[in-house]
Amino acid sequence: MNASRKPIRSIDLNADVGESLGPWPMGVDAALIPLVSSVNIACGAHAGDPATILRTAVLAAKHRVAIGAHPGYPDLIGFGRRDLEMTAADLRASVIVQVGAVEAAARVAGTVIRHVKPHGALYNRSARDPVVAATIAGAVREVGPALTLVGLAGSASIAAARTAKLTVADEAFADRRYEPDGSLRSRLLPGAMLEPGDAAAQAVSIANDSTVSASDGSSLSVKADTICIHSDSPAALEIARAVVDALGSAGFRIAHRAGDA
Amino acid sequence: MNASRKPIRSIDLNADVGESLGPWPMGVDAALIPLVSSVNIACGAHAGDPATILRTAVLAAKHRVAIGAHPGYPDLIGFGRRDLEMTAADLRASVIVQVGAVEAAARVAGTVIRHVKPHGALYNRSARDPVVAATIAGAVREVGPALTLVGLAGSASIAAARTAKLTVADEAFADRRYEPDGSLRSRLLPGAMLEPGDAAAQAVSIANDSTVSASDGSSLSVKADTICIHSDSPAALEIARAVVDALGSAGFRIAHRAGDA
Amino acid sequence: MNASRKPIRSIDLNADVGESLGPWPMGVDAALIPLVSSVNIACGAHAGDPATILRTAVLAAKHRVAIGAHPGYPDLIGFGRRDLEMTAADLRASVIVQVGAVEAAARVAGTVIRHVKPHGALYNRSARDPVVAATIAGAVREVGPALTLVGLAGSASIAAARTAKLTVADEAFADRRYEPDGSLRSRLLPGAMLEPGDAAAQAVSIANDSTVSASDGSSLSVKADTICIHSDSPAALEIARAVVDALGSAGFRIAHRAGDA
Amino acid sequence: MNASRKPIRSIDLNADVGESLGPWPMGVDAALIPLVSSVNIACGAHAGDPATILRTAVLAAKHRVAIGAHPGYPDLIGFGRRDLEMTAADLRASVIVQVGAVEAAARVAGTVIRHVKPHGALYNRSARDPVVAATIAGAVREVGPALTLVGLAGSASIAAARTAKLTVADEAFADRRYEPDGSLRSRLLPGAMLEPGDAAAQAVSIANDSTVSASDGSSLSVKADTICIHSDSPAALEIARAVVDALGSAGFRIAHRAGDA
Repeated sequence: MNASRKPIRSIDLNADVGESLGPWPMGVDAALIPLVSSVNIACGAHAGDPATILRTAVLAAKHRVAIGAHPGYPDLIGFGRRDLEMTAADLRASVIVQVGAVEAAARVAGTVIRHVKPHGALYNRSARDPVVAATIAGAVREVGPALTLVGLAGSASIAAARTAKLTVADEAFADRRYEPDGSLRSRLLPGAMLEPGDAAAQAVSIANDSTVSASDGSSLSVKADTICIHSDSPAALEIARAVVDALGSAGFRIAHRAGDA
Repeated sequence: MNASRKPIRSIDLNADVGESLGPWPMGVDAALIPLVSSVNIACGAHAGDPATILRTAVLAAKHRVAIGAHPGYPDLIGFGRRDLEMTAADLRASVIVQVGAVEAAARVAGTVIRHVKPHGALYNRSARDPVVAATIAGAVREVGPALTLVGLAGSASIAAARTAKLTVADEAFADRRYEPDGSLRSRLLPGAMLEPGDAAAQAVSIANDSTVSASDGSSLSVKADTICIHSDSPAALEIARAVVDALGSAGFRIAHRAGDA
Repeated sequence: MNASRKPIRSIDLNADVGESLGPWPMGVDAALIPLVSSVNIACGAHAGDPATILRTAVLAAKHRVAIGAHPGYPDLIGFGRRDLEMTAADLRASVIVQVGAVEAAARVAGTVIRHVKPHGALYNRSARDPVVAATIAGAVREVGPALTLVGLAGSASIAAARTAKLTVADEAFADRRYEPDGSLRSRLLPGAMLEPGDAAAQAVSIANDSTVSASDGSSLSVKADTICIHSDSPAALEIARAVVDALGSAGFRIAHRAGDA
Repeated sequence: MNASRKPIRSIDLNADVGESLGPWPMGVDAALIPLVSSVNIACGAHAGDPATILRTAVLAAKHRVAIGAHPGYPDLIGFGRRDLEMTAADLRASVIVQVGAVEAAARVAGTVIRHVKPHGALYNRSARDPVVAATIAGAVREVGPALTLVGLAGSASIAAARTAKLTVADEAFADRRYEPDGSLRSRLLPGAMLEPGDAAAQAVSIANDSTVSASDGSSLSVKADTICIHSDSPAALEIARAVVDALGSAGFRIAHRAGDA
């Protein structure tokens, strides 16, 4: 009876997609996209040729999933995971052009882009380097002032985006172990990636309590507007399903902040 | 007295710009852009890194020159001048993404793009191959239905754009010799490139009479909505100045079809 | 007793390998390389970053498999499967530099390269276009006069290599259906790829009788110094095992023409 | 008369060449190569397409100038001047493959390569980072144990090469101002580049006295086996001529360490 009065809580679940390249597939986009509420499409710099960008945008639009651009360092061979000392001018232009690529694809797919989330080494760099963070935020502000910037919860990336008057989305990770200081445990260390069951539990803990259990067992506060599911791990799909099921059981609707895309 | 009643005639003069790449400059954009009324900015596939795209869009906006995207085959080393057998799906996506790149740069520069003009081997292929022409026209229609498609006057490219309900602009060349059949004389043959004086005369002849004198001396009808000045020849600037002066003396204002950009 | 007098027949089995790119794996090199007697390593133009080239050369050397360079058109996104109109000068230089890349990797792996086999669209083009065939053969002759050129059996590629005084290896395909004219059935048509059992039978027929059964059922003469197993099909490994088993049962030893590499 | 008893002293003068890319020329190679005794040819990673590599090798061979490979970070847009966090495995493979490219071109040009000199950010990184220096030295040792490694005089690069049992060549710069600590003055600061007259004087001072006058006027010891002339500055040719003339007047022959190449 009073169930109807209980507010329906929702949480955004996002995944990085469109990371194939020409003849080289990556990820499980076709199966993953229907499970999440927003996707970050690679823009051709660290991954994603034009046909992949367009195909991915069409797939996301079909499933009414919110589309964002996922700009990275221009480094295909390194998959944008190697730090590259770009000048602010080059980085600004790179972000603008990368956003434009996905924006055009989204339009052809009948929709628009809602957010920008940096990729890989650029994501990590902007989480800790205020200058890089400000450059990215400034570029996003110039190319699309209504775009949300998605960054590591509580990081320099979020702070710079706020300064640039952008809407921000703090991001947390379901399938990555956190260190006590709030950083993500390095993939080079054991236990960096969570099993599906643990990822599901962590997602619910983030959504319900804004809390994760860090690598040393301590409780860590992690506020999240969106939760990331990795798409490039072998177990990506299994993790996604476990997270979606657990969030559903906990009373959450998987939905983009802005409602249906 | 009756001079005021004489209609002011205008003609669009365009140039391909933004064809530098990283540390490698090309062309004389800074000097050429103020002389023309529209520019076609390379989109990163055959030339043009993001910083070049953005810098060129800013320069064009500053001089109130109409900006267009100049998509080419994805082939930097070949500068988009080598035919590449792309599938229609790949070509469609490539055009969409390339247009998006320049579009984003133009927005950041405070303006919008007005047209699309294919580059090099893609321009030539679309002038004679109805399938390629239709693919390009379809992609432009999808990504920007208000964009004008610029193509070789009277070619398959123009026909396909009309079929796609795009506004078209027939293009003629001031500094290239025409063959009697209306094609451009191959650069491999002597006399393919005109001297500044001859280019100026040809530009006036096109603007005034829709006529050029072909390589065999015959008169050829060439209707043109826009006249192209090449920017990559050593004499580019000299030719541009001669053409601008001659058109001015003949009573033409150099202006974009849509008025000031 | 008289078994020892029966000559042991051998046949070279080759596979295209090293076609991964940075984070994007392709093929089943680790499982396939031990089954064949020679491999063709992608050189970085159509596939294969430096780390992939080197890792593949080391793997091939470990299994004492003969290494060749597998140059393709410089077109990663199209995987070298799209025809590209290169000038003879550009194609010559491209082949030389691509061969040099694999040669250096082979040396570091403790061995040397034995052959060159063009890839994809370049392979097909050189099989039918005497000018392209002569350019490739000339480049191979210049960069390594002792290298064997592997090409489609009886094609223009083989003829040009003979003219260039190169050792040649006529290649036939175990897992592709032939058309009555000796060409490979297009992958766009049904029945282009053979099932493991049929591929095995075709390999034995080629090795034993220099004959294949074409798509119309007619018998076709195909002389082969080497038989190719594709590595990029889902069933690659199954086909390879079936072919190896069938050739073994038919009394063939899988071995490179030059003996152990 | 007693001139014949005076020992003829020689000094190697080197320049970075082959840094054009497809349609984009760079440098003044044709005029510069005849003036120096060794050249470092870009390998396709930071600059240099295959046709440029081959053309440059042929030009160097014609002028009997010693050829070296000039590997850089794989970053065309950044021209190898941006630091890139490559793993040791990736850097090792990259150096090997880049050396192989120039090696093959040199062979076709009728000669062999003599040395390896890292480019740009990789040169600077290897001058101060022992891990990167050891990776490069190890790769050169593997791919060509007889190759000389050219590095900043007295730097970590030289030390690592000695540890790897490579022949080394300490390099000094004629046209760059030194700081008192032996580093090169940043190009971002005034006075970083010397005028032709000052460059000539510095070259003679290095060759004669192993000494340069640093930015604060202090005298700095700089031992050099080879002196670099930059090829990418507008005044490159003028500087080269001034340096060559001054060294000649001071009694030096411009010659490679190994004699004629």
